[in-house]
Amino acid sequence: MSQKFVGYAAEALGAPFVKKEFEVGELDPEYVEIDIKYGGVCHSDLSMWKNEWGISQYPFIGGHEAVGTITKVGAQVDNLVVGQTVGVGWVVESCMDCLQCLSGHHNLCAKAQPTIVHHHGGFANKLRAHKNWTITIPDGMDPAIAGPLMCGGVTVFAPLLEYRISPVDKIGVVGIGGLGHMALKFARAWGCEVTAFTSSPSKFDEAKRLGAHKVISSKDAEAMGQAKGTFDLILVTASASLDWDLLISCLAPQGRLHILGGISEPIKVSVTPMIFGNNAVSASPVGSPYAISKMLEFAVRHGIAPQVESFKMSEINEAFARLESGKARYRIVLEADF
Amino acid sequence: MSQKFVGYAAEALGAPFVKKEFEVGELDPEYVEIDIKYGGVCHSDLSMWKNEWGISQYPFIGGHEAVGTITKVGAQVDNLVVGQTVGVGWVVESCMDCLQCLSGHHNLCAKAQPTIVHHHGGFANKLRAHKNWTITIPDGMDPAIAGPLMCGGVTVFAPLLEYRISPVDKIGVVGIGGLGHMALKFARAWGCEVTAFTSSPSKFDEAKRLGAHKVISSKDAEAMGQAKGTFDLILVTASASLDWDLLISCLAPQGRLHILGGISEPIKVSVTPMIFGNNAVSASPVGSPYAISKMLEFAVRHGIAPQVESFKMSEINEAFARLESGKARYRIVLEADF
Repeated sequence: MSQKFVGYAAEALGAPFVKKEFEVGELDPEYVEIDIKYGGVCHSDLSMWKNEWGISQYPFIGGHEAVGTITKVGAQVDNLVVGQTVGVGWVVESCMDCLQCLSGHHNLCAKAQPTIVHHHGGFANKLRAHKNWTITIPDGMDPAIAGPLMCGGVTVFAPLLEYRISPVDKIGVVGIGGLGHMALKFARAWGCEVTAFTSSPSKFDEAKRLGAHKVISSKDAEAMGQAKGTFDLILVTASASLDWDLLISCLAPQGRLHILGGISEPIKVSVTPMIFGNNAVSASPVGSPYAISKMLEFAVRHGIAPQVESFKMSEINEAFARLESGKARYRIVLEADF
Repeated sequence: MSQKFVGYAAEALGAPFVKKEFEVGELDPEYVEIDIKYGGVCHSDLSMWKNEWGISQYPFIGGHEAVGTITKVGAQVDNLVVGQTVGVGWVVESCMDCLQCLSGHHNLCAKAQPTIVHHHGGFANKLRAHKNWTITIPDGMDPAIAGPLMCGGVTVFAPLLEYRISPVDKIGVVGIGGLGHMALKFARAWGCEVTAFTSSPSKFDEAKRLGAHKVISSKDAEAMGQAKGTFDLILVTASASLDWDLLISCLAPQGRLHILGGISEPIKVSVTPMIFGNNAVSASPVGSPYAISKMLEFAVRHGIAPQVESFKMSEINEAFARLESGKARYRIVLEADF
């Protein structure tokens, strides 16, 4: 028994989004159906819209920071019920059978299905998702700001959890944008000493307001020199070619430089200083269902919310233009108005 | 009250080693004096002899895999006694006061004093070392093979310890030489599945004899393809420019590529596959006194010995030529014959 959803679709690379009906089949027994209330706009929606990764299909319907209310549950679903407020992030399902899924690292499942790759996303009136990738929004969290936590939020939170970062650690955050501003908030609430690295002097005060104890201009050679040997973890949220050896020189012994943004060119790193510092360079994608749940719980307890600009979903084209301009402070959320 | 030691000194870069007396002052209260019986020859003795790192001083006396008997202890030494068989590795002292020393990572102390940098090493009749960098050779270990464990051995052992490698992990070892052959033995005894990567087909059987369950030719594209996504840890013991992205593609989710040899050129690494695999590239130097002690204890319990070629210390020039030829299988040890 098929059914019709309506979403904002781009018919071709970079084409404007227009309201369009699309057909869906039977509800999978392990899936739930969600009435969408809010959808965060992530930079990867932009990349997919423009087929920057060569994997987009058109008509393209983005949206993978979706928040709404469950309206149907599949026959095999017993962890969720109709009426619950839930969120769905970058991944809409994983195989649940591989060693990654079985060990709690579902986000590393080779068959993980992204919500917006060969799949219609959450800029629609309804979205379906697997019962274990549909995460309950905890009491006390405003659903209007929960969306950006589902993808961007857990991306910066997961390394704190996975690497068992301690509150005595010193954390640096490179890049104060969609991801970076949430990283500052999470790292501050984690109990760490937090330093923002930014090349925009205009963001100095802002970075402190967001949680940084200190701000360093990455272009200030003297300040970078003083930071040498200091950081246990540096989170790189800027998708840019940086002076990697300079950043690694800022790591404390056993410190880690962790990259969260896709960087198109290979990075060049000198090995000898890494040997003497016993340092690591690592990277990670979004988090597992466990990480998302723990992140939401932590965010409520610490009053952490992304800073968002709000649009109606019918203003999606304006919202994408705003994101593309680089001026959004710092995430954009669309409110469904079908 | 000064005293005279005799050692094998090179008067200039690459000059032959000749027996030479040198004067030493009072014994530091925290130091012990060791009558040298054996000295391993490490590749870094060769690098220092040739001033490859620009930090050598001449006359140069190498030797930092020294094993012998304590003949004197300083006034403040109460953890060691005269007559004990001990070893000294790459580091002869560290500050003992910094956070690295205080947290058990003395090997990362910024003031760690290498045994052969601005200091006369163990290719001599006697060597002095700090009481906490002088490690007791456990009962049951042949002192004639203990030397190479003090530097090369702990270098490959330390990552197993530091990263809490589990016996269920799969380990790859790149390069079957002085370090690599010990890595195979330690990883096998650690309980892991062990794979050797080598570009020399002549070493296939040898690698299995040394502990590898499997051997992969790093030039065999099909075999490398089959290894994709497999390894929790790959230890790189070859000091060469390799196809880093290809090696990283062999890592399992959350796997780590760990580099143990100085590589002169910066390495180039693609970030996107590391993001999806949540992988790390890291590096480390020699181990701490704790790591050396645990490594020696583990080696005795598992009957692990480096494979060595023996020379008299008076044959030091022949020994260096042999090491330089690349034909040594796999470490060289000099027996003192003053």
